[in-house]
Amino acid sequence: MEFEESGIGEECGVFGCVAAGEWPTQLEVAQVLTLGLVALQHRGQESAGIVTSDGASSPTYTAHKGMGLVNTAFPPEALLKLRYGNLGICHTRYSTTGISELQNCQPFVVDTLHGKIAVAHNGELVNAQALRKKVMRHGVGLSTCSDSELIIQLLALTPPMEELDAPDWVARIKNLMTETPTSYSLLVMFKDVIYAVRDPYGNRPLCIGQLVPISKLHSPGAEEEDTEGWVVSSESCSFQSIGAKYYREVLPGEIVQISKHGIKSLSVVPRPEGDLPAFCIFEYVYFARPDSIFEGQMVYTVRQRCGRQLAIEAPTDADLVSTVPESATPAALGYAQQAGLPYIEVLCKNRYVGRTFIQPNTRLRQLGVAKKFGALTDNFTGKRVVLVDDSIVRGNTISPIIKLLKEAGATEVHIRVASPPIRFPCYMGINIPTKEELIANKPEFQNIAGYIGADSVQYLTVEGLVSAVQEGISFHQNKMIDFGNKSDRRVGHCTACLTGKYPVELEW
Amino acid sequence: MEFEESGIGEECGVFGCVAAGEWPTQLEVAQVLTLGLVALQHRGQESAGIVTSDGASSPTYTAHKGMGLVNTAFPPEALLKLRYGNLGICHTRYSTTGISELQNCQPFVVDTLHGKIAVAHNGELVNAQALRKKVMRHGVGLSTCSDSELIIQLLALTPPMEELDAPDWVARIKNLMTETPTSYSLLVMFKDVIYAVRDPYGNRPLCIGQLVPISKLHSPGAEEEDTEGWVVSSESCSFQSIGAKYYREVLPGEIVQISKHGIKSLSVVPRPEGDLPAFCIFEYVYFARPDSIFEGQMVYTVRQRCGRQLAIEAPTDADLVSTVPESATPAALGYAQQAGLPYIEVLCKNRYVGRTFIQPNTRLRQLGVAKKFGALTDNFTGKRVVLVDDSIVRGNTISPIIKLLKEAGATEVHIRVASPPIRFPCYMGINIPTKEELIANKPEFQNIAGYIGADSVQYLTVEGLVSAVQEGISFHQNKMIDFGNKSDRRVGHCTACLTGKYPVELEW
Amino acid sequence: MEFEESGIGEECGVFGCVAAGEWPTQLEVAQVLTLGLVALQHRGQESAGIVTSDGASSPTYTAHKGMGLVNTAFPPEALLKLRYGNLGICHTRYSTTGISELQNCQPFVVDTLHGKIAVAHNGELVNAQALRKKVMRHGVGLSTCSDSELIIQLLALTPPMEELDAPDWVARIKNLMTETPTSYSLLVMFKDVIYAVRDPYGNRPLCIGQLVPISKLHSPGAEEEDTEGWVVSSESCSFQSIGAKYYREVLPGEIVQISKHGIKSLSVVPRPEGDLPAFCIFEYVYFARPDSIFEGQMVYTVRQRCGRQLAIEAPTDADLVSTVPESATPAALGYAQQAGLPYIEVLCKNRYVGRTFIQPNTRLRQLGVAKKFGALTDNFTGKRVVLVDDSIVRGNTISPIIKLLKEAGATEVHIRVASPPIRFPCYMGINIPTKEELIANKPEFQNIAGYIGADSVQYLTVEGLVSAVQEGISFHQNKMIDFGNKSDRRVGHCTACLTGKYPVELEW
Amino acid sequence: MEFEESGIGEECGVFGCVAAGEWPTQLEVAQVLTLGLVALQHRGQESAGIVTSDGASSPTYTAHKGMGLVNTAFPPEALLKLRYGNLGICHTRYSTTGISELQNCQPFVVDTLHGKIAVAHNGELVNAQALRKKVMRHGVGLSTCSDSELIIQLLALTPPMEELDAPDWVARIKNLMTETPTSYSLLVMFKDVIYAVRDPYGNRPLCIGQLVPISKLHSPGAEEEDTEGWVVSSESCSFQSIGAKYYREVLPGEIVQISKHGIKSLSVVPRPEGDLPAFCIFEYVYFARPDSIFEGQMVYTVRQRCGRQLAIEAPTDADLVSTVPESATPAALGYAQQAGLPYIEVLCKNRYVGRTFIQPNTRLRQLGVAKKFGALTDNFTGKRVVLVDDSIVRGNTISPIIKLLKEAGATEVHIRVASPPIRFPCYMGINIPTKEELIANKPEFQNIAGYIGADSVQYLTVEGLVSAVQEGISFHQNKMIDFGNKSDRRVGHCTACLTGKYPVELEW
Repeated sequence: MEFEESGIGEECGVFGCVAAGEWPTQLEVAQVLTLGLVALQHRGQESAGIVTSDGASSPTYTAHKGMGLVNTAFPPEALLKLRYGNLGICHTRYSTTGISELQNCQPFVVDTLHGKIAVAHNGELVNAQALRKKVMRHGVGLSTCSDSELIIQLLALTPPMEELDAPDWVARIKNLMTETPTSYSLLVMFKDVIYAVRDPYGNRPLCIGQLVPISKLHSPGAEEEDTEGWVVSSESCSFQSIGAKYYREVLPGEIVQISKHGIKSLSVVPRPEGDLPAFCIFEYVYFARPDSIFEGQMVYTVRQRCGRQLAIEAPTDADLVSTVPESATPAALGYAQQAGLPYIEVLCKNRYVGRTFIQPNTRLRQLGVAKKFGALTDNFTGKRVVLVDDSIVRGNTISPIIKLLKEAGATEVHIRVASPPIRFPCYMGINIPTKEELIANKPEFQNIAGYIGADSVQYLTVEGLVSAVQEGISFHQNKMIDFGNKSDRRVGHCTACLTGKYPVELEW
Repeated sequence: MEFEESGIGEECGVFGCVAAGEWPTQLEVAQVLTLGLVALQHRGQESAGIVTSDGASSPTYTAHKGMGLVNTAFPPEALLKLRYGNLGICHTRYSTTGISELQNCQPFVVDTLHGKIAVAHNGELVNAQALRKKVMRHGVGLSTCSDSELIIQLLALTPPMEELDAPDWVARIKNLMTETPTSYSLLVMFKDVIYAVRDPYGNRPLCIGQLVPISKLHSPGAEEEDTEGWVVSSESCSFQSIGAKYYREVLPGEIVQISKHGIKSLSVVPRPEGDLPAFCIFEYVYFARPDSIFEGQMVYTVRQRCGRQLAIEAPTDADLVSTVPESATPAALGYAQQAGLPYIEVLCKNRYVGRTFIQPNTRLRQLGVAKKFGALTDNFTGKRVVLVDDSIVRGNTISPIIKLLKEAGATEVHIRVASPPIRFPCYMGINIPTKEELIANKPEFQNIAGYIGADSVQYLTVEGLVSAVQEGISFHQNKMIDFGNKSDRRVGHCTACLTGKYPVELEW
Repeated sequence: MEFEESGIGEECGVFGCVAAGEWPTQLEVAQVLTLGLVALQHRGQESAGIVTSDGASSPTYTAHKGMGLVNTAFPPEALLKLRYGNLGICHTRYSTTGISELQNCQPFVVDTLHGKIAVAHNGELVNAQALRKKVMRHGVGLSTCSDSELIIQLLALTPPMEELDAPDWVARIKNLMTETPTSYSLLVMFKDVIYAVRDPYGNRPLCIGQLVPISKLHSPGAEEEDTEGWVVSSESCSFQSIGAKYYREVLPGEIVQISKHGIKSLSVVPRPEGDLPAFCIFEYVYFARPDSIFEGQMVYTVRQRCGRQLAIEAPTDADLVSTVPESATPAALGYAQQAGLPYIEVLCKNRYVGRTFIQPNTRLRQLGVAKKFGALTDNFTGKRVVLVDDSIVRGNTISPIIKLLKEAGATEVHIRVASPPIRFPCYMGINIPTKEELIANKPEFQNIAGYIGADSVQYLTVEGLVSAVQEGISFHQNKMIDFGNKSDRRVGHCTACLTGKYPVELEW
Repeated sequence: MEFEESGIGEECGVFGCVAAGEWPTQLEVAQVLTLGLVALQHRGQESAGIVTSDGASSPTYTAHKGMGLVNTAFPPEALLKLRYGNLGICHTRYSTTGISELQNCQPFVVDTLHGKIAVAHNGELVNAQALRKKVMRHGVGLSTCSDSELIIQLLALTPPMEELDAPDWVARIKNLMTETPTSYSLLVMFKDVIYAVRDPYGNRPLCIGQLVPISKLHSPGAEEEDTEGWVVSSESCSFQSIGAKYYREVLPGEIVQISKHGIKSLSVVPRPEGDLPAFCIFEYVYFARPDSIFEGQMVYTVRQRCGRQLAIEAPTDADLVSTVPESATPAALGYAQQAGLPYIEVLCKNRYVGRTFIQPNTRLRQLGVAKKFGALTDNFTGKRVVLVDDSIVRGNTISPIIKLLKEAGATEVHIRVASPPIRFPCYMGINIPTKEELIANKPEFQNIAGYIGADSVQYLTVEGLVSAVQEGISFHQNKMIDFGNKSDRRVGHCTACLTGKYPVELEW
């Protein structure tokens, strides 16, 4: 609901788990997967799916998918049926191209000559149309419009399957990676192994966690032999829920094999000479949970730095700094600190507001956002307010908030946005309104303060954002990250939605 | 419910409709499809699906599938979304191999280089495993275990698709038919045409109906120009519901093209030299609705003849003849007529009995069938009863009925079964208990009367059944059937479940 | 569904059970109640409710109510929660005055100074409005419009409750019976006893059954000491489902006490001098299940006699006699026997037809009944058909059937109705269309054959019906009925809907 | 969910609306009621109900109730059916005495001799048992265990109803108020009027709002003639959602009549001489939404003052102050300001966590709260943290949070609770665990810091809380409150759960 209103949305979260040691495992793999999904719920609320395998030589796969939040999609009987898994992958999905149906839910599973393959995918293949044609030219019918099915058929299709010997799945994954540059963070499960794959540009996040005994969760030296299992997740915030230690990120272009014997880096598929990584900068700005860690830094801290940077770029003569709860709070606190102004709450959020079935064209429709936020009147009456928001996409959410504050007694309301204006579509997995709907592309943007009723509006610059993000990146110092002998850790972020500079050429 | 108790079950019903004349049509194609499905509901109650196409050059396909009966699976909003179809196919499904999930529902639809294909299938490919391997050897992953997906991928796969020109779909269908001999009655929909296909053995039924104006429905000469559309269905009983005239059967091995321009027989793929047709004889005995017409005769009439034949083969010294309602009634009436005994009802069926959640091992469990049937005591107290049933599969349904009758005052109960004992599994689309569960294969069968508590039990012979079925077949005399210049109409029926003689060699 | 189409409907069924002997009982009271309800499902499909008591001195009552059929309304968890009952009553309800809400479901339960009372009611109080006023004049608010709540508040209200001593509930019930003459068959449950009450006119049925060990169910001498419990039900058809022996009817005006110690007749409240009983004659004609027993005779047999009488009153020159399945079958068989014509089925019913969401004003709407019935064409082509129906209420169901038969080849269709025309409303518990909607009150009735498209239409006379009903009544001869020393068993039936002669004066 | 974990819960919220001026009104009363309910959702999430009246002389009442959140309980068709209301009341309910069934939902409606009465009630009658007996002694059966039904029957019952004249409802309400001292905030609706009633102790909140044209919502002089309607609500936070201006509180003991002609104070029923008001102090501490206004002050501000007072009473030598999000945030900000320490967020809340169906006794169970909160590690590693919570009821929520923080690197965690320990049950509408479950009554409370793993634990004193609450109360200065000529505004709060001093003597 909320994400829809804000107008941009992540498309997916992926999560996987492999029990270590002897199978059948004591580890409740299905429950680890469920809790992991719950922790990634902010990345997709439309549907959820889990596939587990018992890992036997003739493995039994069990799958359950459902519409809605994880708790709705997975009633007790679903968990019951999944309980014999020794490894599994799962997926939570945001509504994509309008087709909210169960058959589009991931993970996608197919049967091949050499057993079942399951795929969970976060991202969007920039050359999906060309790849679909390629697959179909081989005479394969595609039953959904999901990239996930496309990926799985590509893996199955080429090079031609040989009946007698097992195929070299890793070679097939590498081959796939050469055919599509971005964007994908991918979990590919075969009967007893999961391959965690990140595209060469590292556009979508993916990281690995280590399940240690709860008792050793926070002791410094959790040894290899204590490991109860391995997990892989879009975001590290899911590790706390399941008692996993952060292990490391999957590198751009890397294929990591996760089996009961542990994790093993198999290969790093390179980018074209000269290309930088292109990790989505909006993961920092908006999508990720603030307690997640990317590139050695906590997302919350980056947002706070964005707020500080914004205070430097766009200082305000005001009495207090506040937030549009809840996602803008770190930036607002950063702004307040930097500006030396008090941080004071002015809005109270009604967390029970969902879709009420109010007819259009009524008195109540005019009230708009009022049912979602209450004004903490006494905190700001007669005051000049700096209101920090994380992003303004369509402009139709912030406008009624400003009205609410002014009518409740704020003498001035200055909007400060902790990210630059979004001007371009994303073709790499983020659901952004059409160019025409983006406030930054409307004529009214010339006088946006007037348009939304603010006394002033200022955005963070692209340079400011990039520097706020990049100044804290630390690959080697951070004790939690160990990349072994992978050397190249150049830094780069995708800012395409802000600048129109896409990391790869787009073919349509 | 009822079918499950009886222990055998048809797996599917298929139905299709193409509006004639100009498109968009005035014909409510989605409603015709829905009513057609409802009329085929006895062939499958687990799930239902409809796919329609608007038939445009870049067609829009719309699909809806749901679990349960048609009325449950198709709420008003589903019909609304399907309403722009100018042609469509649909399917109702019985629970098959244990996986009752939405993704196994038909019709199956895939996107190919040359547009979408939709397939609805009744039957079971005898060489499905070999065909699955073949498809997978080409590198195609199969996402379900349904024959429907297999068929569609076979159609798409070979011969290799050429990008520039449209494929010869009919050639592909013919090719498919050479790869799998039986059993299938198939509807294959492309953007603006449906191909109705019956396997060379004609194992599953399929027939064509003509939608004429309601006003001309029963006038003798409904001319071609009056045709509002064409329908194709597993059984002709569906034609009454939608106001269609019976046109003719699809022949064994025939491919019929149905488009807005009418119907056209494209080809008849022959059987191996010397092989007879093998239309499932249990369609007559049990599955089909009594008002359906196969091979020029009404199913009800065949059942009545079976009852007469049974009276000849197994006469009884008794006071009255009765039925296990409702499916055995025509046979019971036939028996009574032949035997010259009065036909009197002894059982009253509670049509509201479904699954009640009664715990096992209780007093009430012992009552068994009693909640389903009430005894019409006064009709038979002190009488010797001949009770005609259509089939005895496991023996656990008839036994409590006999007990009920005897305890309520019947002096003798003689069971006469209007079909031979089922002894063998079916691999062509019928869900039959395992060999061990079939009463005819149990040691108790030697003394079945004692085992089920009857005074005597007699079955119709295979020869008796075959002759009762075949004596009424009339291809040319019956005004409703016109096969044009298709000459070969030899007669043959599959009695594999009774005799173990399968129409084709089984490969496993 | 079906009853709604026919236009008349029973409003309710009631059922109760008390375990005999020591409590907690081994008898599964909740399951007995559920199965009893399922067997009464034809008397009401809108909602169902069960209330049980553990019968302790401070009793625990447990209730569950739900919308829809019993199987829907009582999921396993509902049965689980009811399982500790040692006695209980239940109710199944047809939609009444338009308010289909859960709060109107019965049984109704209230807490009084002397414990909880639960009431289940079949019937309709003719003076309900006056009684409601009376209750409200005492300052009681009524939370539903159900007679059941009204009855319960009347029982609680007068005579005034005394705090110290237990009230004389039987005196209160008698008092209630003097305040309202009809119609009610009532189950009133207190903590450890059920009172089964039938109004002085005996307008609605009520009978008692004895739960004996399954092994002794059909042995002649089930002794008192074998009794596992007692049941009381609107119809005896429910006894077979639960393994109960028919014991006897509750007499008009009788109050029977059912406790763990057995059954005891407490009182028979008399009718006004000279009034006959007024048992609803439509219970025989239409409502009751054919295997139920009223006044010593099986309903099926009465219907058969109605058919015979009809053949005498309205003979036809025809080739065959048939039925509108399924309820008219006994009458059709009776007609055929009397007329010496063959009984042949002409219609096949699609039992899966329910509400399909077809839009109005379409081609398919014109087909009407066709989706519900299939014509068994070969059975009647070129024949003159006598079609027996049990009643014609609105005339809109029979008309399309006649059309179907004629168009399919019947040369003549003669309608014979095994009951007289309904002309008057019922105020005693039966849902009948308004006078204007009844076909018998329309001008078209003068030429009804022409109106509905039949070659002739004839109804059974009121005298014919009454004599068909009354000739088989046997109170004393029938071994299953033992009225002890209750002597007056004059015979009388309510024919108000046919004749306008109501058993009591109506006050409005 | 959340409230259940914290262990205490408000039982209800009430809301009413009357359209001003001519009826039928242009005001969407049903929508106003729905939005009002949504804004009170924090006071009860179990069920919701709305009753509207069209206000005609023979009024049509429409009611809808449903389980779950307002958005679930009121689907579009429910709003549709309620749309003709000109006035209405509604209710949202927390689970009370274990019986979560639809029939216990409020508002309760009954029909009386003088029309329908509807009642919505927040609170709990301290002498409910005695009153139930009184009602039942008059011979009234009570169908639920809700106070709401009891109140309505008391209103109907005494003094005796006269048939001819309309009863004096206000006198009846006054009479009721003399029979039960507390606790109730009550909405009583008759056909065209709502009475808003607050008990003489003012234990539960109730306030009035004025619906003005949206355009004049924030203009200073909204005149009487502009009024589109009046609303009455448990909390003023609901007024923003619907565009209502805060008008004033209902006084303790006051009966306010709300009709289309406006609001009118009818009476103030006094408390016993010498008794102070007893407004529930936990409304300030925990229950109310922070933007609500009680006694002239914003709840948020009171919570902030509690935090400041706590910093004075229990200062800490630490590096930062933080909150258990979200309810403790104002207190934490107050503490930080007073203490001169930085306010830094240490926990991130996963708002998608609900009930996941995790089996007991597993590895994951040990993780406890971790799935609900994420640690913002970098914000506090190596720091001494003051963690402010609003209340500690059972102690089982705070303990895993402390563990989480310490294991993630906090060197010290000091718990400061912005309210005193709860030691006593509430009999006035708040759901509090049994005395034995309250941490403050356990032996472990002697060493609570050790028990929950904190470095220190300190609670606000009762005196500190009372002074923080009472210092900001302003009845006359605050422009938003106008009490007319009601003079007595002594101040008093119920602290029974903290001190055991109940405002009235409890009879059991």
